[in-house]
Amino acid sequence: MKIGFIGLGKMGFNMVEHLLDLGHEVVAYDVSAEAVASIAAKGATAASSLQHLVGELDAPRVVWMMVPAGRPVDAVIDGLAPFLKVGDIVIDGGNSRYTDTVARAEKLRQQGIRLLDVGTSGGLDGARHGACMMAGGEREAYAVVEPMVRDLCVPNGYGYMGASGSGHFVKMVHNGIEYGMMQAIGEGFDLLRASGYDLDNETVARVWSNGSVIRGWLMELAEKAFARDGDLGWLGGKVADSGEGRWTVEAAVELGVAVPIISGALFERFRSQSEENFLDKVVAALRHGFGGHAVQSPESGEEKA
Amino acid sequence: MKIGFIGLGKMGFNMVEHLLDLGHEVVAYDVSAEAVASIAAKGATAASSLQHLVGELDAPRVVWMMVPAGRPVDAVIDGLAPFLKVGDIVIDGGNSRYTDTVARAEKLRQQGIRLLDVGTSGGLDGARHGACMMAGGEREAYAVVEPMVRDLCVPNGYGYMGASGSGHFVKMVHNGIEYGMMQAIGEGFDLLRASGYDLDNETVARVWSNGSVIRGWLMELAEKAFARDGDLGWLGGKVADSGEGRWTVEAAVELGVAVPIISGALFERFRSQSEENFLDKVVAALRHGFGGHAVQSPESGEEKA
Amino acid sequence: MKIGFIGLGKMGFNMVEHLLDLGHEVVAYDVSAEAVASIAAKGATAASSLQHLVGELDAPRVVWMMVPAGRPVDAVIDGLAPFLKVGDIVIDGGNSRYTDTVARAEKLRQQGIRLLDVGTSGGLDGARHGACMMAGGEREAYAVVEPMVRDLCVPNGYGYMGASGSGHFVKMVHNGIEYGMMQAIGEGFDLLRASGYDLDNETVARVWSNGSVIRGWLMELAEKAFARDGDLGWLGGKVADSGEGRWTVEAAVELGVAVPIISGALFERFRSQSEENFLDKVVAALRHGFGGHAVQSPESGEEKA
Amino acid sequence: MKIGFIGLGKMGFNMVEHLLDLGHEVVAYDVSAEAVASIAAKGATAASSLQHLVGELDAPRVVWMMVPAGRPVDAVIDGLAPFLKVGDIVIDGGNSRYTDTVARAEKLRQQGIRLLDVGTSGGLDGARHGACMMAGGEREAYAVVEPMVRDLCVPNGYGYMGASGSGHFVKMVHNGIEYGMMQAIGEGFDLLRASGYDLDNETVARVWSNGSVIRGWLMELAEKAFARDGDLGWLGGKVADSGEGRWTVEAAVELGVAVPIISGALFERFRSQSEENFLDKVVAALRHGFGGHAVQSPESGEEKA
Repeated sequence: MKIGFIGLGKMGFNMVEHLLDLGHEVVAYDVSAEAVASIAAKGATAASSLQHLVGELDAPRVVWMMVPAGRPVDAVIDGLAPFLKVGDIVIDGGNSRYTDTVARAEKLRQQGIRLLDVGTSGGLDGARHGACMMAGGEREAYAVVEPMVRDLCVPNGYGYMGASGSGHFVKMVHNGIEYGMMQAIGEGFDLLRASGYDLDNETVARVWSNGSVIRGWLMELAEKAFARDGDLGWLGGKVADSGEGRWTVEAAVELGVAVPIISGALFERFRSQSEENFLDKVVAALRHGFGGHAVQSPESGEEKA
Repeated sequence: MKIGFIGLGKMGFNMVEHLLDLGHEVVAYDVSAEAVASIAAKGATAASSLQHLVGELDAPRVVWMMVPAGRPVDAVIDGLAPFLKVGDIVIDGGNSRYTDTVARAEKLRQQGIRLLDVGTSGGLDGARHGACMMAGGEREAYAVVEPMVRDLCVPNGYGYMGASGSGHFVKMVHNGIEYGMMQAIGEGFDLLRASGYDLDNETVARVWSNGSVIRGWLMELAEKAFARDGDLGWLGGKVADSGEGRWTVEAAVELGVAVPIISGALFERFRSQSEENFLDKVVAALRHGFGGHAVQSPESGEEKA
Repeated sequence: MKIGFIGLGKMGFNMVEHLLDLGHEVVAYDVSAEAVASIAAKGATAASSLQHLVGELDAPRVVWMMVPAGRPVDAVIDGLAPFLKVGDIVIDGGNSRYTDTVARAEKLRQQGIRLLDVGTSGGLDGARHGACMMAGGEREAYAVVEPMVRDLCVPNGYGYMGASGSGHFVKMVHNGIEYGMMQAIGEGFDLLRASGYDLDNETVARVWSNGSVIRGWLMELAEKAFARDGDLGWLGGKVADSGEGRWTVEAAVELGVAVPIISGALFERFRSQSEENFLDKVVAALRHGFGGHAVQSPESGEEKA
Repeated sequence: MKIGFIGLGKMGFNMVEHLLDLGHEVVAYDVSAEAVASIAAKGATAASSLQHLVGELDAPRVVWMMVPAGRPVDAVIDGLAPFLKVGDIVIDGGNSRYTDTVARAEKLRQQGIRLLDVGTSGGLDGARHGACMMAGGEREAYAVVEPMVRDLCVPNGYGYMGASGSGHFVKMVHNGIEYGMMQAIGEGFDLLRASGYDLDNETVARVWSNGSVIRGWLMELAEKAFARDGDLGWLGGKVADSGEGRWTVEAAVELGVAVPIISGALFERFRSQSEENFLDKVVAALRHGFGGHAVQSPESGEEKA
């Protein structure tokens, strides 16, 4: 199959390499000419502009976007639209907010262009050797691209979810679950560390990765991380959050669904990022106010309210 | 009424001053001879030992302990018991764990001595001018000391809760609620700070202290704290926890009662105390593992799982 | 002072009564002619329409809205705007979302009309006898209406917060704190109930309302509720949530502020409303899957993973 | 290898079958004579009593217990001890609390008997075909039984953790993580259900089980459960909790480690079990108190504090 591919970041570049390995023809574009040259060296057709990219494709054209959520997606769609024709298919493979996707799909539909949202999981390794994909949008449009989706994924690792936005919705919830699972794992190793048993994190993660109830890819990644350094001393304690985590909580609030675990994991990331914990200072000030407790030093103050 | 009083820390000293103001006779003892001398200067009878203290009292003797929870309470009880007689009353006014209280009361009961547990709230100001007290133990023993309890408290601010340990149980739960309320207030001011509105914390706390649904002593204390410094710049962000917070969560786990708010407040205190957040490092390592995300810098890493 | 007042629900009606008591002139309107007749019987001037209401006022006109958040507010503003003149002041005293307020204020500003947002707390009793108010918007416009705000509030229970939307923002956060405090209190009484001590909730709430660290209006309300029925048997377990709770969590997510307690309280309300707890079923199914645990009956299944 | 095996419940029976498959000699005992007869039919030597079981073994004897935590473990140890000799090894393969294990090991050590704690994960299927085991106790004693542990486990799925109790500690934390992961998964599917997208849970779980970041055994179990019934209509919403979940939270509180996710998952189980949610009633009563909100019906009450 021949497709256009826009966005050669870490994920996109790996996906194009995978497509080329499998014999697909790819016309590739990125704002970085260097990235385009690199992928051209591996067999892709280099495009110098969005117009150029569209011109290289046959109707119905299929263009896969793998660009950061938000304005970059709008910019690419706005840049592509003038050159696309009725029946063409645009795939948003990134982590767009599902509500944005619904709005974009509606807008493109008026021009006869079909937008598919294909949430992608599996990390860099998955992008290169077999990913997991959740697709939303018109079923007929999905049928056109399904062979390529199948090729990009591990067996059984892809599927049609439903109407426009559902692919991104399911991917968003996937990330929310991921937040919660990682936090649960983190709490567990924090407890092990405090246990006084002088446990070896790599051994524990290795054992848990084989035969336990909590085995899975995240535990295997933990094993690798601890194999490198059982104390993770090379890492700081700040953890970035991404759109999906926030959007999951916002969706839950809007839908009236209780998500204490997913939100708790998100809030811990916020907490890890804060330089100054004003909340804690307020609590310390209140304790000082009623009990005369010395502040700041954990040793100092028995609660005597 | 004439009583023995053991423990002249911040709370105990204030309580004895209050009792003396009200015309009670107090025989006072503390491990600090200096504290004993100070209170004697205010009208208390100084006791040089537990034996001495007991010797100054008339049957049925009433001895009020105001000492730190745990071993100090056992030490005082063990030191007192040989000199006490059947019918005497010992009051544990501190923050003992209710299960310890039940065990101590049972042991003293075998000697004919009655242990009352009187949880005390209201802070230093309450200790000096009118506190809040929750009493547990034999109702007949409580009746003996109720006049003194009444004098120590603000009107309606005291009561008999029930069997041995119930006074400390109710006080423990009080502190659990206190944890949750303070954390809620802290989160609120943290949000105000992040709002971009350049709000004045003292003004907000003052307004909320007068006529709002969330008015109460804690908000008044917040107003005072912000009057001193709206940014609380003189305070570090570490908040000590005390036995009651932990015990409340442990009791909830044992009783099968869900306490996400109270436990959340306790865990935030743990979090504030930790120098190294291993949990966060584990999460950062996992994200790095699957997504190749740069670590530590919040700017670097869009979640691209 | 003479003002127009729109919205004679529980809160609005009480506020107008309060204004009339204090000697203010009020031209009142509501979609319910019955409500208008009731307040007219107490001394207000009845308005039969928004146009009529505006016509009764002198420049600069001051109109206080007390209507449900969302479309009703827009409907009233759209209905009023054609009749207002440059310099007139509209007050939104309801629980509008602060972002809506900012947008409405900007729109009215283009017409020379000044929108003030005055978040109101204190419940029905406060509305009738002395409330708590947090004002946002142009400071000059606030100065015009401050005397009336002062009259409506308890001493010190009002203040100017800042730019447009800040009044509603601070009120929103107030409600978030309220959620957390109520949940903490609820968890506490749940623990007391499970303690095995046969405690009397009214006694506990009465004691805690006098002299304790957690004393405040909410505890006094708890005392009243338990005085009516210590088991609250007349109440179901579903608790409604309102816009402010959800908006507080959404604002926190947007601002990157961790609010585990406030969100936990919101989620418990969601949980209380759910007829079918799919989450729990999923967990039960997973346990059944790996451990063969009998499902649904808490007695049946020791975790044997 | 020849061992004694005590406890032929679901897990134990499967493990003995596995051992017999692998050519080990097993002398089996259970309080149920029927279970003993069943396993004897598959090749085990039936023991009619603990004394009989010990008598069939050669020094150093190895006895594997697979009985419920708590008193049953003490009962078996007390029943075995008189017949064991210096150097014999007892394995507690169940879910004992690690603090109990430490105490039991110390007691047996005085008699020269070595207690190993071998936490077991992997469910019924793992017990039968390859489990995951975390061992604690004397390293020399572990070396004796390691070949059998290796045979019972999947490759790499076992290991020596450390001193006495560490095997049960690590297993306990494993279960804590399991609680958190299951809850995260449950929240995710709850969100999908509320999304309005008419998603097929089985499809989603199947896709997530192949190539995604959150792939693992729990997701595979979710896929199977949804394959049976996408709505889980055959299941009630009550989820039992087990000792390990509670102990994990208690250990965290004792060690001062924040575990909001693991505790949140435990509390949701408590919540699922409660018939009457007193907490919610308290909150409803407070709202009614200040805002006059109608109670119980979510439709009725806009928050108007």
